[in-house]
Amino acid sequence: MSLDAIFNPRSIAVVGATDSPVAAPGAPAVSFNAHTQIFLYTLIDWGYPGRVYPVNTKGDEVRGLKVYRSLRDIPGPVDYVICIIPADATPGLVQDCVAKGVKGLHLYTAGFAETGLADKSALQADLVRVARSGGVRMIGPNCMGIYQPKMGMTYGPNFPRESGNVAFISQSGSYTLLLVRAAAARGVRFSKVVSYGNASDLDEIELLDYLADDPETEIIGAYLEGAKDGPGLVRVLTKAASRKPTIIIKRGSTEAGKRGASTHTGALAGDDSVWDSMLKQAGAIRVEDFEEMADLMTTFAFFPVPRGHRAVLFGVGGGAGVRASDECEAGGLILPPIPEEMRAELARTLTTAGTMLRNPVDPGHYARDWTDMMHRLDRWEDADMLLWQIAPDIEALQSDVILQYINEMRRHTLQTFSSLKKPKAVVVHAVESDIGLKALIDTRRMCAESKVAFYPSIYRAARAICRYMDYCKQRGRKAPVR
Amino acid sequence: MSLDAIFNPRSIAVVGATDSPVAAPGAPAVSFNAHTQIFLYTLIDWGYPGRVYPVNTKGDEVRGLKVYRSLRDIPGPVDYVICIIPADATPGLVQDCVAKGVKGLHLYTAGFAETGLADKSALQADLVRVARSGGVRMIGPNCMGIYQPKMGMTYGPNFPRESGNVAFISQSGSYTLLLVRAAAARGVRFSKVVSYGNASDLDEIELLDYLADDPETEIIGAYLEGAKDGPGLVRVLTKAASRKPTIIIKRGSTEAGKRGASTHTGALAGDDSVWDSMLKQAGAIRVEDFEEMADLMTTFAFFPVPRGHRAVLFGVGGGAGVRASDECEAGGLILPPIPEEMRAELARTLTTAGTMLRNPVDPGHYARDWTDMMHRLDRWEDADMLLWQIAPDIEALQSDVILQYINEMRRHTLQTFSSLKKPKAVVVHAVESDIGLKALIDTRRMCAESKVAFYPSIYRAARAICRYMDYCKQRGRKAPVR
Repeated sequence: MSLDAIFNPRSIAVVGATDSPVAAPGAPAVSFNAHTQIFLYTLIDWGYPGRVYPVNTKGDEVRGLKVYRSLRDIPGPVDYVICIIPADATPGLVQDCVAKGVKGLHLYTAGFAETGLADKSALQADLVRVARSGGVRMIGPNCMGIYQPKMGMTYGPNFPRESGNVAFISQSGSYTLLLVRAAAARGVRFSKVVSYGNASDLDEIELLDYLADDPETEIIGAYLEGAKDGPGLVRVLTKAASRKPTIIIKRGSTEAGKRGASTHTGALAGDDSVWDSMLKQAGAIRVEDFEEMADLMTTFAFFPVPRGHRAVLFGVGGGAGVRASDECEAGGLILPPIPEEMRAELARTLTTAGTMLRNPVDPGHYARDWTDMMHRLDRWEDADMLLWQIAPDIEALQSDVILQYINEMRRHTLQTFSSLKKPKAVVVHAVESDIGLKALIDTRRMCAESKVAFYPSIYRAARAICRYMDYCKQRGRKAPVR
Repeated sequence: MSLDAIFNPRSIAVVGATDSPVAAPGAPAVSFNAHTQIFLYTLIDWGYPGRVYPVNTKGDEVRGLKVYRSLRDIPGPVDYVICIIPADATPGLVQDCVAKGVKGLHLYTAGFAETGLADKSALQADLVRVARSGGVRMIGPNCMGIYQPKMGMTYGPNFPRESGNVAFISQSGSYTLLLVRAAAARGVRFSKVVSYGNASDLDEIELLDYLADDPETEIIGAYLEGAKDGPGLVRVLTKAASRKPTIIIKRGSTEAGKRGASTHTGALAGDDSVWDSMLKQAGAIRVEDFEEMADLMTTFAFFPVPRGHRAVLFGVGGGAGVRASDECEAGGLILPPIPEEMRAELARTLTTAGTMLRNPVDPGHYARDWTDMMHRLDRWEDADMLLWQIAPDIEALQSDVILQYINEMRRHTLQTFSSLKKPKAVVVHAVESDIGLKALIDTRRMCAESKVAFYPSIYRAARAICRYMDYCKQRGRKAPVR
């Protein structure tokens, strides 16, 4: 069976939906039911095009929808079920799903094989057996399920509603939340994201195979904790990577990490170097963690392929410039020194005394028009890309009012910057302060809107750009994936 | 001459003060003069106890104060001068300072030796010659000067007004802004901070010597780009480090970084391994950058010395727990597995199915009372410290409303947490989203108010705690520096 039925359900039932808040002794009062908001409200709010059915043994109403006491009571067909009831009630539900002809069952419910307990693992195996024999595919248990904006399906109410060309799959639901948010904040948009938890039925092999063929997906990312079927994984990774950039996070390398991974989804972490060579052989790009994956997705989406590794970095100087130079080189970029004559030329377009014009180029703080300087740098033959560094924490005047003023300046500068010919990106010098972090948020939003690549640190920019260049060189790719 | 006269001036003149905005073509309109706000307004707003004199050839008034046309026109004595006029006007000013019996002249003004131009270097040398022969000590040029909250002196209007026990000196003004902000956000407070730029007169040797003797300073930090007098530096570093934790940032190790450093303050960066062994020999703690310095200052200020390296990490699990384990071990901490019987005990204090209780301990999301669990972990003999990890980016519900709710829960949990016996800290799992960064800001503020050590990443926590433990073991230190 193709997974199409799961990704395009005509109706969805949310079993366990209720508006009763979950109370806990000693904690502040809650006025909402988090799981119902996450799995039911989102379908309504995002305009899921099919029928939505809340199910709960207590009946009643949720968000104006009649609550059915059982899946079997629902009058029409149900293609997809989201399960948020406790583990001990799931055997009955799986039988109901079979009886109802459900195509896909997403078990958010935890308390199965991941506990490491024999009886819980047996319970999971039972569910799989019954579901499979009845033609029901299972996602999970112990996972967040599907985010697919085109269909109005999400478990992240604040994920982007707009669709894109990037897919991401992960055993860990947390990692999907981390990655989607990190990449989305920078303008990356998604086709399909799947958190598949314990992978009792649907697993990474089937999902990668599907995404390799999926016409809506042009970039694939995956967070892997382990694999039950090594050769099968190599086969689908090779297929996926031969068609689309395929980026992999594989963690769990330290002893403590391995223990964490095994508690988490019951997967075997395996030897790190084996994973390393397996991924290389398959043609996948292995990244350190979700931050680097978001960096690469941003680069693939917004950064034209530069001719070489020579960058001009401008925006701030001083000690920050020294650090920025180090970070550029650590990531693999070169900052060629700007020749004497050109420095003199640049100096004429600027007005401050305390400027450093060798590269990094510091045009000076506050209220300057950098248009001429940027155009001159854009024409420089010996640079392959332009990096504009903002450094809110080295501005002496720092307040919400000043931030607004500086944001206005940045918007002005970004307009010119985004019109330049060379590949270009905005990078943030390390910020730690409240206002600095707010400035990062604001600038990032501006860049996402202008479709300019944004990186939260210069090292991360340099590392991602260099890995992207390596990949493009190997594959003969000339343009970003838009 | 002791530097006391510079740190305790009875009156300060700000030369170049004006309310006229500095306009730049093409940039959005400015309605303020940044330099005057930074160097004059702050003295008034922070209640500097001596007389304040604005000086400007144009005369007029600033913030209700009469503006003198020349330093010589000021009726009373002037101990300290802050210079924000252009470089070509500085020779006249230095002569005025000598004539007026000024003790310290801080030249914010840039455009001297750091330009690498012979005539500008000569100009700087001339200023030093005239100042020295006239008994005027110079700070700078090309620097931010002094931040000393006790005296109401600052160049960061949003720096803490409260005094503390930490001193920091830096050639780079940027680094003082970065470090003060990073450490202050976490509750660290300062005695004296000096940005001394080109170090034409007052340099790191004299400053470190002074701070080693300063009764208000218990921890010393310094950002060094290079040294003109190696043996002199070793001598004062050894003196300082023998009395107080002395933490050093020395950058400029890559080729581009060296070039940056030399453009910046005209210093010779020197070979990195030479610096490394020199700092070790002196007994100083060398850190990677300002973030690690802020981490160590936070640790010295708020973290009792643990008996060993065994940590319990609780708060979130899943993929985030796997990563957290890796980061702990990379930083040098051990996460001992929680034994079977104790896990069963913990399970009774919690209510969710999807919990991981082996360490990392994941007590489950939303609306829980962790009091019993925390007390049980606090009593565990096989753990030396407790780390509470917050991970706003893996909460599925993420909005400003939910953030407020979660903040309330966190405040509640922090109350219990801060009453526990073991050394304890709050750490943030990597966040990238807007709301996640806001949650970091809010939690950090709560921790600073409760005097609980806060770290923006678990790796940074582990690294700082382990380096702190090494230091304390070597020195036989038993308690944090409060």
